[in-house]
Order: sequence, then C-alpha cells, then structure tokens
Amino acid sequence: MPTESRGASYPWERELGARPLGDGTCRLRVWAPRASDSVVVRLTSGDAALEHVGYGVYEVTVPCAAGDDYWFVIDGEPLPDPCTRWQPEGLRGPSRVLDSGAWGGAGPAFAVARPEELVLYELHVGTFSREGTFEAAIPHLRELAALGVRAIEIMPVAEFPGARGWGYDGVYLSAAQSSYGGPEGLARLVQAAHETGLAVILDVVYNHLGASGVKAIEAFGPYFTEKYETPWGRAMNYDDADCDPVREFVCQSAVGWIRDFGIDGLRLDAIHAIFDESAEHIVAEVARRVHAVRAGALVIAESGLNDPKVMRPRSRGGYACDAEWADDFHHALRVLLTGYQEGYYVEFGRVAQLAKAFHRPHVHDGDYSTFRRHRFGAPADDVSVEGFVVFAQNHDQVGNRAYGDRLPAPARPLAAFCVLLSPFVPLLFMGEEYGEEAPFQFFSDHIDAEIATATREGRRREFAAFAQFGQEIPDPQAASTFEASKLTRSADPALARLYGELIAARRELPPGDADEIAFDEDARWLRVRRGEYELVCNFGADRTRVPCRGAAIRLATDPEAQIEDGHVELPALSGALLG
Amino acid sequence: MPTESRGASYPWERELGARPLGDGTCRLRVWAPRASDSVVVRLTSGDAALEHVGYGVYEVTVPCAAGDDYWFVIDGEPLPDPCTRWQPEGLRGPSRVLDSGAWGGAGPAFAVARPEELVLYELHVGTFSREGTFEAAIPHLRELAALGVRAIEIMPVAEFPGARGWGYDGVYLSAAQSSYGGPEGLARLVQAAHETGLAVILDVVYNHLGASGVKAIEAFGPYFTEKYETPWGRAMNYDDADCDPVREFVCQSAVGWIRDFGIDGLRLDAIHAIFDESAEHIVAEVARRVHAVRAGALVIAESGLNDPKVMRPRSRGGYACDAEWADDFHHALRVLLTGYQEGYYVEFGRVAQLAKAFHRPHVHDGDYSTFRRHRFGAPADDVSVEGFVVFAQNHDQVGNRAYGDRLPAPARPLAAFCVLLSPFVPLLFMGEEYGEEAPFQFFSDHIDAEIATATREGRRREFAAFAQFGQEIPDPQAASTFEASKLTRSADPALARLYGELIAARRELPPGDADEIAFDEDARWLRVRRGEYELVCNFGADRTRVPCRGAAIRLATDPEAQIEDGHVELPALSGALLG
Repeated sequence: MPTESRGASYPWERELGARPLGDGTCRLRVWAPRASDSVVVRLTSGDAALEHVGYGVYEVTVPCAAGDDYWFVIDGEPLPDPCTRWQPEGLRGPSRVLDSGAWGGAGPAFAVARPEELVLYELHVGTFSREGTFEAAIPHLRELAALGVRAIEIMPVAEFPGARGWGYDGVYLSAAQSSYGGPEGLARLVQAAHETGLAVILDVVYNHLGASGVKAIEAFGPYFTEKYETPWGRAMNYDDADCDPVREFVCQSAVGWIRDFGIDGLRLDAIHAIFDESAEHIVAEVARRVHAVRAGALVIAESGLNDPKVMRPRSRGGYACDAEWADDFHHALRVLLTGYQEGYYVEFGRVAQLAKAFHRPHVHDGDYSTFRRHRFGAPADDVSVEGFVVFAQNHDQVGNRAYGDRLPAPARPLAAFCVLLSPFVPLLFMGEEYGEEAPFQFFSDHIDAEIATATREGRRREFAAFAQFGQEIPDPQAASTFEASKLTRSADPALARLYGELIAARRELPPGDADEIAFDEDARWLRVRRGEYELVCNFGADRTRVPCRGAAIRLATDPEAQIEDGHVELPALSGALLG
Repeated sequence: MPTESRGASYPWERELGARPLGDGTCRLRVWAPRASDSVVVRLTSGDAALEHVGYGVYEVTVPCAAGDDYWFVIDGEPLPDPCTRWQPEGLRGPSRVLDSGAWGGAGPAFAVARPEELVLYELHVGTFSREGTFEAAIPHLRELAALGVRAIEIMPVAEFPGARGWGYDGVYLSAAQSSYGGPEGLARLVQAAHETGLAVILDVVYNHLGASGVKAIEAFGPYFTEKYETPWGRAMNYDDADCDPVREFVCQSAVGWIRDFGIDGLRLDAIHAIFDESAEHIVAEVARRVHAVRAGALVIAESGLNDPKVMRPRSRGGYACDAEWADDFHHALRVLLTGYQEGYYVEFGRVAQLAKAFHRPHVHDGDYSTFRRHRFGAPADDVSVEGFVVFAQNHDQVGNRAYGDRLPAPARPLAAFCVLLSPFVPLLFMGEEYGEEAPFQFFSDHIDAEIATATREGRRREFAAFAQFGQEIPDPQAASTFEASKLTRSADPALARLYGELIAARRELPPGDADEIAFDEDARWLRVRRGEYELVCNFGADRTRVPCRGAAIRLATDPEAQIEDGHVELPALSGALLG
C-alpha cells in the first residue's frame, strides 16, 4: 500500500457533523469505523443510508433543514452525532441540525484587547444568574464592562449530563449545553458581549470525556486509548491507532467555536492530563488551528506542568499557547493571606515565594516540590508577563474546597490588590468583585445512577476529615447545592469600590516586567516597583513600616495606610500603591 | 515546609552505590524509601547499619575493599544494590565493590571520529565469539578497524537473567553482565578497542527493567509508575512521585559508563516507550549529562517517533541527541530488495520512498501510516545527515524474524552499497561484512519459570503463521538457539571485498546532503549525486539502463555493470558508483 504524500487530505479532515447547505439539504459526515455494516441517518422524514468514503468515514447529503432532528443508527442503535452542535433534549436525545452561518458573518469579530489590557472574568452560566441561562447572563454584562473587565471566560458548555453541573463532564464538544439555552443562546450571549465591549473565552475540556457519554461515543470509533491514565476517566486517543479523526473531533470543535460562534479564545482545561507522543502535540495543533482561523484569538492553557514550552513559539519547540493559568501565584498569595497550608498549599507560606511569583509565576521552576515529591517545573524568564493568568479565586480554588467557601473577607482587599496590580493577566471569579458571600459548591446532575453515587461518595470521602467537625459535606447531586451556589449579588460596597479603583489604577501601570522586587520575610512585607509606582503589601498580623521611594499613596486597601519619611505604614493584611 | 531553591542538591544526587575510597573503606549509598525501619549492609565481615540522610537515602562508610561482596538488607531480606556495578554471581547474587578509578584515568579518552567519518558495527558479545565474552571479542577488533569500522556498538550488557540473552531484559543498569566477564572484562574490551582505534558505543535500556528484577528493585522504592503502559513491562517512574532518584539511577549509570569505563557513547533503546511529562524529558537529561561528563561523547536514540525534536538542540526545544536510528531507511531499502511486505513493511516498496529517505530518512514525515493507522512523524530537514544512523541489517531486523535469518544473499551487495554510500552514519550488524550465514535468533535464559514459559509461548504465538509451514520456531530458552546464532566466520570473499571497497569509497564522498536525487518508479532505478560522484541503483529484476553524468565506474556491486553514452547499464539488484 503506498505511502500518501504529506499534503494529502483524508476524509476525516473534511467537516464532520451536520451542515445545512442552504438549498433544503444538509450534508452529514461521520467517522464510524466500528459500525459493522452500514451507517444510517434517522430523520423525522425517514432513514437514509450514508456512503462509506474511506477510513471509516461516511457521508450523505439529504433533504433536511436547520432545526431538524437526526440520529445516526449504528448497528441498529440510534445515537447522537459525536460532532453534534445541538442536543436540544440533552445528552441522550437526538442531535439537531444547526445553521450558524448567519452568526459567523454578523459584524466584525470582536478584537481581543491587547494582552496587557486584558482583565478576565470567569463565570459559570448556571449560577451567574437566577435563571441560569446564557440569555439571563446578558443583563449583567454592562456592569462588568463598566468595571473594566475585558473578557468573560465561560466555564465549559459542551453538552454534559443533566441540567446542573460545572461542565467538566461534557461529552459533545461542539454542542452548547441545552439547559443553558443551547447554541442559539450562546450565540446571543457572545453577540451581546461583543456589543458591550467584552470578549468571550470558552473553557474547553480535551483531557477526557464525561463518563455518561463514553458508551455512545465508543460505538462510533476508538476515541480512547489504554496507553495512558487520567484522573478523570479514560485517556483520549491522540496518538494511538486511528487517532487522526479523534484529533479532528477536538480541533474542528475548537475552530468551530471561534469561526461559527465568534468566540474570542479558548481556555484548555488541564493540559497536563492530555497525553500525546505525536510530533505535533494536540495542544500545539489546537493552538495552531485556532490562530489560523482567527489571528488574535487566544489559547490559554490550564497547565499543571510549570513548563514554559506551553507558551514558547513553535520555532523553539513550544505549543504556542498565548498564556497559561498560573496556579503557583495563587497558592503563594493565598497561603500568605490565610495561613492555611492543607493539601498542595503545604509548600507555600513564604513572602519570598510571592516575590518570586511577581517576577514569573513559576514558583516551582525546577526545585523540589514536597507535595508532588519530585523536582518540578522550569524557569519561564523567556515568556512575557502577559503569558500568565493570575487569580486569587477561581472555580477550582473556591469550589473544590469542602464547602465551596470563598476567600475569607479580611483577605479579599489585599488579594485583589496583588492580582489586579500584578504585571500578569488578572482573572476574577464571578462575584468576587463585590464580595459575594454565596459559596460556589461542587454540584452535578448525573443521569446514570452509578455515576451519581460514585460522585456523591467520592466527594464525601475526599472531605471526610471536615465532616468530623459536624458540618455535612454538600451533596453534589442535590438541587439545593446548585441553588446555594447562585450569586446573591448582595454587595460589600467598599470592596466593590476597591475593585473599580484597582482596575482603573492597573491601566496607569507600565506593562511588562516588575522593575524591582523586595521583601522582608520576618516583617512579612513585599514591595514591587513598576515604573514610577510601588506596590507595597503587608502580609503580617501587625501594623508594619516599609521603606519606600514613593511620596504619595495613590490607592490603599485600608484607609489607615500612611506615608512619611520614606516609609509607608500599613495595617495588617493591607496594600498600598505609591506613585 | 519551605520550597528549596533551584540550585539545592539532594541526597540522591550524590553518587549512589558503592565507592571504594582508597583507604580501606567504602562509601555505600542507597535510596530505599520503602525500607520500613533501618537499612543494613551485609558484608562478609558482618552487618553495618546505614544512616538515613533524608528523602529515603541511606549512607555509611565501612571498612571494605574493592572485590568485597555485599548485600543491602531491606526488611530482613538481603538484596543486591540497585546501583550495583558488579554482580559476579548473576542477577540474584551479591553485589561486589568495584574499583574503576584506574580505568577512568588510563590514557587519553578515545576521541570519537567526526560524525561524517563514523562507521558503526553492532555486535552481541555472547555470539560474536565462540567463548561469548568481552575478552574473546578482543582478537577480532583489529580486523574491524582494518575494514574501516570506527566504533563498535555493543548490545546491552546491563546484568540480565541467566547466561544467554539479547540483553534487553537487564535489571542492574550499571553492572556489566557477569556471564560476559563482568565489569573488568568490559573495561579490557574498551581499552583494547581504543588501542585498535575503535570507539565503543553501549546499548542501554531505559524504557523498562527486566521482569526478573522487578521485585528486588521495587523493594527499595517506587521505580515504576502506573501512569503509562509499555509493551515490555511496567513503565519507569520518570515523572511521578519520588521520580528524582529513579532518574538518578538512570543518569548516574549513563554517566558512569562514559566516565569510569571510557565508553564513547550510548545507544538509547526505544525511547518512544519512555514516557515523561517533566519539563526536561529524561532522554534530554541523559544527553545533557553525558555531554557534560565528556564533550563529544555520543548519544544515539532508537526512536520510533520520526520526530526531529530528538536531535534538535535544547534551544529549539529538542532533546539534543546526536543521532537516531532511522528505521524508515531500512524499511524502504529492504522491501525494494526483497519484495516482502509483511507486518510494518506493508507500506514500503516504492523507489520514491528510498529516494525520499536519501534526503532525510523520515519517509513518514507527517503523512498517513497504514501500519500505525495514523499520520506519523515530521520532516527533519533541519537535522544534519549525520543525525541519522542507517542500516540494512541490525539485531531487530534480523533477530526479530521467525527464524532470525539474515538478508537474502542476492540482496546483500546492493544493500551494503546503499547503506555505506549514503550521506548518513552507516551501521553494520556483526557478520554482514563478510556474508555470515548463521542466523541471529531470539534467545534467552530466563531464571524464572513463568517468565521463561511466557517468553517461549509469546514467541510461538507471534510467529504461529510461519510454523504452519512445518519449520519449528526456535525455542528461545534452548541453549541450541543461542549456539546456532554464534558467528561461524565463514566468509563470502567477494562480499567481504566489496564491504572493504565501499567503506574506502565512502571516505572519498563529500559529506553532507545529497546534491540530487532522481528515480524511475517503473524502471526501478535510483540515482543519487554526491558532489562529483553518482550512486546508481537498479532494484528491478531485469537489467536496466540509467542516464548518468559520470564517465567512469569507480566501483560496482556486479562486474557486469557497464557505462556508455551517458548511460550506465546495471544488472538486476546491483549498484554502481560513478565518478
């Protein structure tokens, strides 16, 4: 059998899924090498056989319009299209043909702010509003834009089981969650965001698929491999036999959000659990294809690798992501603010670590991690400061606590100060900008009894130590857990004002590296110079005096901060911007 | 617990194993985090407790001399030292203290030939001579040097089970196989090679450890991880908790061969089965540390990845290996020569593929591999031609056939012509240089009944299709299989002469890329211009005429080759060098 030349294209590289052609017909294409005989599409109007065009790819063009429901029948069983872009009745209902032609062309794509101007805002659609839909999020956008947020980052919306969930159990990567309002709802939200001056980043999960969908997806082809283990389920097949169509399943979905929905960037969940030995790692391929479909679209990786290759250009062997979530900055900051050192916070707690993180957030840059029990990470000096997203709260750091409680109130002003005045890209977690008191708890709505039980029990086991103290761990499957996590929008006005002032002050700071970083471990202070400005923080429990160059306080998290004689005097857990 | 600074060194980074200090004492150091209480060294003179110096590392200095035997007693059980450098009684005997101080300093290290001058010669110690020892290999070296070989590449010698084996089941990475003559034998062979003008490359296996040693090694610490699967056994723990001392186990062994034994380079077995998510891949670390201990020492990877990153410099995200084994060149050549397309040869058989391989041997450089069932590899234009080792035979391509038969005699001259006159680094497999007729079969001497049975049956299963034809698959455990694989040294004088002529002619060719490559698929000829020379090959079954620029035949594999009128006329399966 001859070797094909490199430039050749294969059937799976054409668009998979359903595409209305505008003439009363739709083209359907599916990769189904496991179908033992034919593949049939089941429409309301009847069945039609697809034609095998090679390598397990089947296609057909049939009379059919946007809005029509369809199933693929594999070995007698009707199943949703793996590349479905609409599951109006949920994970196990029919797929529906979507016409997104109009959206892609609607007005100029929103230009993402220059990286140094970005302020991200992570939100969960289900709990961001009372109604929990894309549509219901729209009225709140104006306020975010007024605050200075430049992009909302939406937690995963790929169709997941049931009506409530964080979204990391999604199965159909290209179908916006039905209970949120489906693809049309998402498109309206994106359009409204753009009209308000906000970009939209979408959280996407390529390290596993939700267990509820494994059987339906596997009926089509080898989407998974036994070569690797992930903590959340079977590893996706990115480098084993028949991996190319699985890579397309992912890449076409990534590209589709950008091209068809006007999404401005993707946040790739947990890429450290994406295993791929191919010459081009799947994360690098996603970044390449997203950048190719729209220059300036962002690819932000959640990377637990502390490895600068994630952001390095391809010419230097990198994946060419635009940025990564920088957990170490969070951990260093959080432990200084709260003193709690449970779990992976155990190795943090020194001002020196936050000082290091203000240069580059890889606090672990090759040293020994006592939590991981090995040397970890590499220095990232060659990656610019805009290559790191920092935060004091996010869905994981709040929601993956036993009770989903947010950062304690006394720590919030200084936390916001450090994040928003850092040289990095700041990310806020919905509600933190006004001191939301509702927790963000772990909730789900699993439709498979076994998975529901395993999730509930897993959660109880994980936090067994806490339950000893008498407070029950919230049941993830209970609707009340979801309801309790909805924003109350009851604000702490002083904190809300501070967020506004910090974001305004951020715009005055020069972009790029900090010019000088100093600290005193015993006195618990940190001082960071950025151009003419100085950020001064007191992480101690007592008032402290910090030597400084600045002559005036531009902004302080505590009104009792004072400046005199080349020193700034700061109350406990407070910060001041001098300049 | 504080984060250590990057420069900090840890107990496991000091030399592990036994080191005589020259004053009647030895320093012993072992990583044994699984020891539930103390760790004791058992010498003939008695027991001595080691002191825990942190992170599961224990050490002690005791009265003891080179040549003394010792065990480490872990939870009451005496076990060999994982970093042993001498197992005089085999895999399950005591470790012995080795003094290699003298060898390291003995005379100037052999300078490896410039890459374009290298000619490698792969040999298996057990079958290279009647006696099957390091010592017995020495008398044959002079002949190799006279032929023009510049380096011998020794199949793995890390202590493996029993007395016979290919060596890929080794357990104690730093102990030269006892049945070959142990470390002192190896040292003598290296010294003799250097005196003869030959460098020595050692084949080392870092993708798994032989199953016979897993229990003894695991008693010390978590050498393996469940994160990944390898085809040959449990994956080594290079990136999971407590991986650093496992990395040292490997790196200190790699460095030790170079520093203490004067070995000139390493051939890393099957790096595609070495899984590591660390910021520095273990293969990159081995290359860095080997190059650091001796500039010019070679690191050659057997890589089934077709990924140029293996040879790229670190500044471009590469592992910085000096070269890789280039299987595609072999496959393209072999199938043209023999027409057999079983197994992974299925996708080869076109002259175009060998033409492509003469440019860079990644025939698969991103195109679809029908055998692997996915797109595979990447172009390697930015890697110099000296970054590829090519061959027409090697231990795998001969030995991993049902009967271990060598390339058929009619194919041998043209095979040698293509390999030796290619721009790449040629590797010969012992005996091919004179037309050895003995097979090289798969043999073992497993000391565990279960492993022996599994090996025997696995082999029968793998080649069941062949056994149908009535010829029994050799029993790997039978001593006769090993004996049958020993070189007879009965030569085909014409072929032996050709090898000499080809190697001599090779030295005249300009180094670097081929200047022009042309072929005719139907007429089955290939023409490669290198400076003023032209290589012309006829892979067809008939005499053929090939247009050429050269006016004279410098060398031909068949005396009937003729040149006239701007054409060279070549008999079937023959080649001529014009110039």
